[in-house]
Amino acid sequence: MGLTYQMKMKIPFDMADMNGHIKLPDVILLSLQVSGLQSIDLGISDKDMLEKYNLVWIITDYDIDVVRLPKFGEEMTIETEALSYNRLFCYRRFTVFDENDVAVIEMMATFVLMDRDSRKVHAVEPKIVAPYEAEFSKKLIRGPKYPELKDSTSKDYHVRFYDLDMNGHVNNSKYLDWIFEVMGADFLMKHVPKKVHLKYVKEVRPGGQITSSYDLNGLESNHQISSDGDTNAQAMVTWQEIS
Amino acid sequence: MGLTYQMKMKIPFDMADMNGHIKLPDVILLSLQVSGLQSIDLGISDKDMLEKYNLVWIITDYDIDVVRLPKFGEEMTIETEALSYNRLFCYRRFTVFDENDVAVIEMMATFVLMDRDSRKVHAVEPKIVAPYEAEFSKKLIRGPKYPELKDSTSKDYHVRFYDLDMNGHVNNSKYLDWIFEVMGADFLMKHVPKKVHLKYVKEVRPGGQITSSYDLNGLESNHQISSDGDTNAQAMVTWQEIS
Repeated sequence: MGLTYQMKMKIPFDMADMNGHIKLPDVILLSLQVSGLQSIDLGISDKDMLEKYNLVWIITDYDIDVVRLPKFGEEMTIETEALSYNRLFCYRRFTVFDENDVAVIEMMATFVLMDRDSRKVHAVEPKIVAPYEAEFSKKLIRGPKYPELKDSTSKDYHVRFYDLDMNGHVNNSKYLDWIFEVMGADFLMKHVPKKVHLKYVKEVRPGGQITSSYDLNGLESNHQISSDGDTNAQAMVTWQEIS
Repeated sequence: MGLTYQMKMKIPFDMADMNGHIKLPDVILLSLQVSGLQSIDLGISDKDMLEKYNLVWIITDYDIDVVRLPKFGEEMTIETEALSYNRLFCYRRFTVFDENDVAVIEMMATFVLMDRDSRKVHAVEPKIVAPYEAEFSKKLIRGPKYPELKDSTSKDYHVRFYDLDMNGHVNNSKYLDWIFEVMGADFLMKHVPKKVHLKYVKEVRPGGQITSSYDLNGLESNHQISSDGDTNAQAMVTWQEIS
């Protein structure tokens, strides 16, 4: 078991959607901030990684379970823990607890190190991850098989300057934005995600346009983000109706 | 002088643009969170305002001076102070300090109370604002006169579900997003805002499309956000080249 780190906050206005629920893309943004804070706390900040090693942490997979989405004004605690690592992947857990210490959102994220210039994956060196006290384990966590879309509906989105972070990378949370947005306001007013599998396949290039496509079967939707003929991300979402 | 409230944070990856500078729209988001936290601290949270009075704080004007934009990994402190109020307006200051306690961004914001259902402005009642200990002053702060645009360049943006907060309001920071985005990535890579005047004229309705227009004369740009034939917001920006 690795070290844990927590951040507590009240959900502000701008992070609540029209139903008062926290926006799941914001949960992703915040969770990345929490792991960033843990790294600062352990003396191996993202800034250090960049300056010392020219490396950047990126996420390749998310597996998210939502028991319920906390609401505006609620206090929540986001906890993170680096669980294990192998030669290429680091597995990290994020848990959102409500005021009664009930785990309401659970996310498993797969991190890899990327060289900032070559944009290639870099091996996980034990000395880099030692401070997190996660265990080494050869066990690979495999995501689901994402099906091809059938009779899909699509919408184009422009990649904006402010969608990019310092590395010219589209923020992780932005993909989820596109995946949810394409469902339309009517759907999003009546449904919340219950389970999300998300896989980042290929970087979206700055400045262009992406297509967010989905098919919906009952309460299950399959998603694809693509640009220039390539698949950038895939997702599977199970929805629940808002009661 | 009113009570002050501070929040300290390190600038995370996702809030830094490709030059490493904090994104100004994120400064607006964060500053609203800071005033929200002050309200919670004083026992008059946004949630209370909604539940007890059916009122929402909205901002009508910003006057922002940027000495420099803090960078990724820097620690900054956002301080806020409710300065004064009159029958309709509350004036609030936000100051961003860097690690050496140098004020690097100064923002004056005009707040008004809006009835959540009628969407009309509600008078500022002294009992509501008393906890902030701001002084009553009849003095009105008037913004600049925003010129009509000449030979403007425009781009359309779709209003997304996640651009809206709980009240179906487009986030304040979003307007600044549209105002900056329309300048294009090439311009934004080479320039940072030095001074911003921003006026919210009319609410953007959810679901539609807005047009972000600007004209640029040297390092001064005039901006307009419009939809359905109405002006929603106006802005004047003075830019500085990144050295």
